[in-house]
Amino acid sequence: MSAQSATAFAPASVGNVAVGFDILGFAVDVLGDRVTATITDAPGVTITSISGVVDDLPKDAALNTAGRAVQALLERAAPGFGIALAIGKGIPLGSGLGGSAASAVGGVVAANALLPSPLSKLDLLKCAMHGEAVASGALHVDNIAPSLFGGLVLTVGIDHPRVKQIPVPAGVRAVVVHPRMFLATREARGVLSRSVEMSDFVWQTANLAGFISGCYTDDLDLIRESFEDVIIERQRQSLIPGFAPARAAAMAEGALGCSISGAGPSIFAWALDAQADAVRAAIESQFAVEGIETDGWVIDIDSPGARLV
Amino acid sequence: MSAQSATAFAPASVGNVAVGFDILGFAVDVLGDRVTATITDAPGVTITSISGVVDDLPKDAALNTAGRAVQALLERAAPGFGIALAIGKGIPLGSGLGGSAASAVGGVVAANALLPSPLSKLDLLKCAMHGEAVASGALHVDNIAPSLFGGLVLTVGIDHPRVKQIPVPAGVRAVVVHPRMFLATREARGVLSRSVEMSDFVWQTANLAGFISGCYTDDLDLIRESFEDVIIERQRQSLIPGFAPARAAAMAEGALGCSISGAGPSIFAWALDAQADAVRAAIESQFAVEGIETDGWVIDIDSPGARLV
Repeated sequence: MSAQSATAFAPASVGNVAVGFDILGFAVDVLGDRVTATITDAPGVTITSISGVVDDLPKDAALNTAGRAVQALLERAAPGFGIALAIGKGIPLGSGLGGSAASAVGGVVAANALLPSPLSKLDLLKCAMHGEAVASGALHVDNIAPSLFGGLVLTVGIDHPRVKQIPVPAGVRAVVVHPRMFLATREARGVLSRSVEMSDFVWQTANLAGFISGCYTDDLDLIRESFEDVIIERQRQSLIPGFAPARAAAMAEGALGCSISGAGPSIFAWALDAQADAVRAAIESQFAVEGIETDGWVIDIDSPGARLV
Repeated sequence: MSAQSATAFAPASVGNVAVGFDILGFAVDVLGDRVTATITDAPGVTITSISGVVDDLPKDAALNTAGRAVQALLERAAPGFGIALAIGKGIPLGSGLGGSAASAVGGVVAANALLPSPLSKLDLLKCAMHGEAVASGALHVDNIAPSLFGGLVLTVGIDHPRVKQIPVPAGVRAVVVHPRMFLATREARGVLSRSVEMSDFVWQTANLAGFISGCYTDDLDLIRESFEDVIIERQRQSLIPGFAPARAAAMAEGALGCSISGAGPSIFAWALDAQADAVRAAIESQFAVEGIETDGWVIDIDSPGARLV
């Protein structure tokens, strides 16, 4: 007799990673959403409960990121099947840590485990994208892919996404700091210019290429030199009180790079293990100057991604 | 007694490589310039001869790419030293194959061999950039770096350039076709918009990141999927009669990618060894339809870069 119920953990994630707007992300395994899927007699997707750090999300499956993602899964893999979802939110809303992506990923991983013919991870990615679109209004994958696959992930293409896990040099850890304030992704996207100056385009592409080459070759100097967002960060930083001094403090403590996590307001840095705690403390102290409480973590970037628990 | 004279060969190169405008290039070792440097009693740089496929270049050292590059070398490494240059051009003018860069690189490599305290390759890169600026009006390095270092090269930064040689998967060769027509780099740069749409920016950066990741991991599928210029090529292709059908013909023969070499009019493709000759023939036949004569080559991308001969 096959299982009637399955629970999946899907981690938070940092999107953009300074140099890869909409294409790069890494998993933040210390935080995540837990979604329990249970087979129902009635076909379709229902949301039975939403609990945890967020509880006022839509219960209409078509308007809920996890619900819509599992609808897309059933449409593709098991028409007529019925799934009820209980969503446990561990990622604060509007934190810039990929909460909507994690719910979508957790939903499809849990539900997939109950299907007679489960889909591949790459197909689950496509289903989860439909869930993410409910929250962000657009199909993008820079949070979904790392939440699903774990680690530092490049995603190329939307219609036929390709996922590439990029190695992170040994000894490099990520600092993630969440200031307890809300910033709507739509607002953070709304401030962005619709175009990029050619000179900034060349600079940012050089940084992206240098960063990725540095990751493949353990070249920390090149990562440090390249790890700068010259396009998006300066348009968004005014939405985050304390960002500029926090970034400066992180770099002064030896961070390899520091920027906004996704649409913000969370910020992240990469640092060698020996500096990581000082970098975290430096960032948090600058938010304290602004009177903003924070949660901060030092994490391993390599992690397994979403999984059944 | 130290040498009084040295000759260097500096290869042609393909700049941009579709996805890395102004930052990526690869050497084309089958073509190049030869520069002979000879110590003179009088200080400074003189140009004694210019021969080969181009002979109407400036003989005033400050206005000549090789002359200006060697001036920069002497200013830095040997003030008061005198060098005479004999330049043998093997790369057609206005071909988009990095001829001005090759002369600059050949000049500094030859002259450097005569100095009591020779500079490093990275310092030679900076000197050669000053020469390239005479021809193109701007400091850029996507032809200089591959001509100097060989192979597929990423250059990050202008003031403090960093050079990264990127591995090319085994079995991949480059096709280079030069249509016998002249296209001024300044004209080809003049058609470019000063800004990039955000959606194209994301697409192009995804292609760049995918291409580089594919090179590091021998992932030919990812290279093929990513190997497309969605920004520069469509602005420049109307300057090159026959480009669009030539590109289509190359892709139909199995090329991994095909685009304009630098500012054009030369075009290049990457292909597996088994397809490379057919790709070259397909491109050349489309130029023939336009009544344009061509020179075409199939080359190994890995090569040693500029060297003394």
